[in-house]
Amino acid sequence: MAVADPIARLVKELARLPGIGEKTAQRLAFHILKAGAGYAGDLAAAIAGVVRDVRLCSTCQTLTDQDPCAICRDPERDPRTLCVVEGVPDLLAVERTHEFRGRYHVLHGALSPLDGVGPSDLKIRELLVRLEREPADEIVVATNPDVEGEATALYLTKLLKPMGLKVTRIAQGVPMGGDLEYADQVTLARALAGRREL
Amino acid sequence: MAVADPIARLVKELARLPGIGEKTAQRLAFHILKAGAGYAGDLAAAIAGVVRDVRLCSTCQTLTDQDPCAICRDPERDPRTLCVVEGVPDLLAVERTHEFRGRYHVLHGALSPLDGVGPSDLKIRELLVRLEREPADEIVVATNPDVEGEATALYLTKLLKPMGLKVTRIAQGVPMGGDLEYADQVTLARALAGRREL
Repeated sequence: MAVADPIARLVKELARLPGIGEKTAQRLAFHILKAGAGYAGDLAAAIAGVVRDVRLCSTCQTLTDQDPCAICRDPERDPRTLCVVEGVPDLLAVERTHEFRGRYHVLHGALSPLDGVGPSDLKIRELLVRLEREPADEIVVATNPDVEGEATALYLTKLLKPMGLKVTRIAQGVPMGGDLEYADQVTLARALAGRREL
Repeated sequence: MAVADPIARLVKELARLPGIGEKTAQRLAFHILKAGAGYAGDLAAAIAGVVRDVRLCSTCQTLTDQDPCAICRDPERDPRTLCVVEGVPDLLAVERTHEFRGRYHVLHGALSPLDGVGPSDLKIRELLVRLEREPADEIVVATNPDVEGEATALYLTKLLKPMGLKVTRIAQGVPMGGDLEYADQVTLARALAGRREL
């Protein structure tokens, strides 16, 4: 005897989420059952709502329920400085700093030949179309500091610099609150190479 | 600017699940969006289905979509040996041993005066009604080996023994594959007290 079919079905669906194993999925399923119809209804409606109402902003390609998105509509945000990020969570991370007053462009991935991700799989064509319509002065490339992110940054630089755009890359170095002793050598080498006069 | 409203709503609902923090909830929400309408539909339907179709077995109080449940219906299962567990995950854990051929009774909790959980909050009355209708020979108390589980086991013993029932408790001792050196002293003391002749 296993668990009742509807529970088994929910466990199966939950276990397809990233980082959720069979055991956690079972715990979540029993919690949903215990919490009752009110919570289950809210959760199911929120899941249905997110795929029904969220689409890509036609300008910056972020996920939004209004097109253009809140940032692209905001007249206070400088349209001549674009921060290019791999994904929406990265955009949110930059927003949390409250230091960037420009706008964004979300690539929805990074170049990764091994995984078969080429330039045409990213929102690069949309970036070029956008730059033609709304010229910018500076492109801040804020892709991840890993192999794919670096490759994407290099690709964008080669593509955008000849168009007369200033292309910048976020600084790489030792993280704040970190400890030099425990910094890996690549990070420390980057920090040294990127040293600035005080 | 925050994330789009439907995403924020889904993140909020997901973060109400046990062990799911704000950050994990956000990751799950973006995964659901990325996986598309097919998966989101399946997940929402599974959630709605579980609260719609699952109820308590009127005999053993387990969660089931058919009443009586598969175990209570199974003529191969000994109706005169009842294993009393705190919750359905505990029932599933006992089932996974393939060692128990009797039936179950799910209490849906354990006595915990500090949390305001008394005997009337557990399915104890249902157990007594059931025993009147379907007499049993042995009650195996498989509540958790913690304060609440022990208190519940003691309460059940005092209640059921005078009715002429044999009440047993699952053995407590060092877990298989464990190491005596790392066993806590309460467990080791229980293992000593419960020693058996070879």
